[in-house]
Amino acid sequence: MELAQIGATPAGGVNRQALTALDGTARDRFTQWCEAAGCTVRTDAIGNLFAHRPGRNPALPAIMMGSHLDSQPTGGKFDGAYGVMAGLEVLRTLQDHAVMTEHAIEVTAWTNEEGARFAPSMMGSLVYTGELALETALQTQDVDGITVASALADIGVESTSLETDRPAAYFEAHIEQGPVLEAQDTTIGVVSGGQGQYWYQITLSGRASHAGTTPMALRQDALAGAAEVITALQRLARARAPACGTVGRMLVSPNSPNVIPDSVFFTAEIRHPDDATRTAMDAEFRQTVDKAAKAHGLIADVRQVLDQPASPFDSQCIHLIRQAAMDNHFSHMDIISGAAHDAVAMSRIVPTGMVFVPCKDGISHNEAEYAKPADLAAGCQVLHDAVLAYDRAHA
Amino acid sequence: MELAQIGATPAGGVNRQALTALDGTARDRFTQWCEAAGCTVRTDAIGNLFAHRPGRNPALPAIMMGSHLDSQPTGGKFDGAYGVMAGLEVLRTLQDHAVMTEHAIEVTAWTNEEGARFAPSMMGSLVYTGELALETALQTQDVDGITVASALADIGVESTSLETDRPAAYFEAHIEQGPVLEAQDTTIGVVSGGQGQYWYQITLSGRASHAGTTPMALRQDALAGAAEVITALQRLARARAPACGTVGRMLVSPNSPNVIPDSVFFTAEIRHPDDATRTAMDAEFRQTVDKAAKAHGLIADVRQVLDQPASPFDSQCIHLIRQAAMDNHFSHMDIISGAAHDAVAMSRIVPTGMVFVPCKDGISHNEAEYAKPADLAAGCQVLHDAVLAYDRAHA
Repeated sequence: MELAQIGATPAGGVNRQALTALDGTARDRFTQWCEAAGCTVRTDAIGNLFAHRPGRNPALPAIMMGSHLDSQPTGGKFDGAYGVMAGLEVLRTLQDHAVMTEHAIEVTAWTNEEGARFAPSMMGSLVYTGELALETALQTQDVDGITVASALADIGVESTSLETDRPAAYFEAHIEQGPVLEAQDTTIGVVSGGQGQYWYQITLSGRASHAGTTPMALRQDALAGAAEVITALQRLARARAPACGTVGRMLVSPNSPNVIPDSVFFTAEIRHPDDATRTAMDAEFRQTVDKAAKAHGLIADVRQVLDQPASPFDSQCIHLIRQAAMDNHFSHMDIISGAAHDAVAMSRIVPTGMVFVPCKDGISHNEAEYAKPADLAAGCQVLHDAVLAYDRAHA
Repeated sequence: MELAQIGATPAGGVNRQALTALDGTARDRFTQWCEAAGCTVRTDAIGNLFAHRPGRNPALPAIMMGSHLDSQPTGGKFDGAYGVMAGLEVLRTLQDHAVMTEHAIEVTAWTNEEGARFAPSMMGSLVYTGELALETALQTQDVDGITVASALADIGVESTSLETDRPAAYFEAHIEQGPVLEAQDTTIGVVSGGQGQYWYQITLSGRASHAGTTPMALRQDALAGAAEVITALQRLARARAPACGTVGRMLVSPNSPNVIPDSVFFTAEIRHPDDATRTAMDAEFRQTVDKAAKAHGLIADVRQVLDQPASPFDSQCIHLIRQAAMDNHFSHMDIISGAAHDAVAMSRIVPTGMVFVPCKDGISHNEAEYAKPADLAAGCQVLHDAVLAYDRAHA
């Protein structure tokens, strides 16, 4: 709640976009808190902050926790900030109880996870994992033409090097940003991984004609075709839970009440945690588009604009998180991470696990974002227990 | 083709909007042609032109033909103009052959059928039939603030009175403005009447949420609901030929690719020549909307913004047109008038019939509008024969 004062909005949310002065203030506060908890804090060239608590065996890599401090322009108090504060709470707990772990324990605040000011999202973790070139990231500009490099300098980041040592494992706590845990009245989401995704841009082209003089059988109604595709995508996704199928954007032409639409542009996306299933859904979806186009005499232009593989998390990390929930008698369930997170990037290079806690009405990226203190504490406990169990298991 | 030079566009169409100087030129030319064919021409206070050829029995009301001379801004050569020229051709034929009819024969050029410059459409015929108050029509302004009254004065219309005598019957020839006759390779459409129409404005409201984190079962996807309504409307209309069901305009909110739509606004319309069937379709359509809303957890706001009854034409007029087509060995079929016409207004006060001829690809309200000379001549012959048959039948 103290962190949430930095960039607090009148509506109760947070506007603390990446590498702004407010983000700098939050980063400084986090650094002070970590140092007060006995850690040293270093930064890398993209501004990721690493709070380090030494372990007994310096030959072992660190076990890392983390998330991000930046927010959406009209964001909430919890998205990202919760995961960093949960890591800090684990550090403080270890310090308060003078616990000596085998591995060093680190908490990372990743730079610019939201991508709201500078694209892409997950910038800090993608640079860290090597998926995004540092130079590309540094030259990225915001709408005012300010580069990431210049914004980093403005808030006092002076490092020019990147980390090359890899942690033993990575754990991230996060609000769910969806309605599942709340609907199931469940405290802990044991995240099994990130979904794979296909994104499409589709244009159906028919012929505009008079809505009163063109018999149904002679129409080439692009919107009627698009409607069938949307309905089929719903059916296709519902038949393969936990698949998601969504059409979010649609533009109709000429968009006049009494003219049969000659062209409809729409986006579509398919998400599924299993890539084989996702591939099968892609094939079925394309057949659906072809069928609707044929039925209505339309020309279909289907562009696949994203094909992102699924990111299954590490089975041992998943197991330790589930075990921690059970040991603490927290209700828990396996859950897919529908949104992107730094943990999804990290999962591609080190064993990774994630802990979800419920958020009210599934609302996130919104000033109304809310999570119950008891749930946040439970997530923190699970994070703590899983990290220590991993430490013991790999000593 | 000579008339089409007045307001001709480079793309081969016509821009001769109601009560412009070009429309004035066309009206003057029509008047000269009618006078040369032995008619007197009068006007009324809304600028309708009536060319009058006396009959043998002055006690009988006139038999009227007509259509309109005004066009859409990017209109074609035939919509409206054909019907007026066809009437003129009948007058000339009677004159050339010194035919003496029992009734007087009149050809009317109705003011502002298109409604492109001044709303509503069918202004002249609606004022004539008493459905639109003269004062209301005269005070209507175009986008430049020019009133109909002022535009009438500018082109020299000085009458301040309306007609009160009614014709014995009204016949109108027109291009089909749809694809049916061409698709059936048929020369003459025997119009059975104007369709009844319902127009709706519908808003479905659900909840915006993340396309990746919201399971299908927990969504309130307004666009998924709207898609089901569109598909159901298609099915509903196809099951009841010659019904038409159309969604022409749709606005999706927030219209972002990765956000489940929380609100969709769309228009819908249902047309059918039989009002009982149309009423049944309305009930079924509303059930469809309710069902889709319930299935997707949406709130449906359904506003019926137009309920226009069907306008069946006069059975004797229809019969005489069909008989004329048969006598001339023209292929012919019964057809509904999907669009509005002056004849639809006239049908509410006097026995009315309409003759359709094919237009290329069903295209109208477009500079590419085209009809074959042979078809136009055939329509003219049918108009002539039907008018003379009506004259004999009511002598």
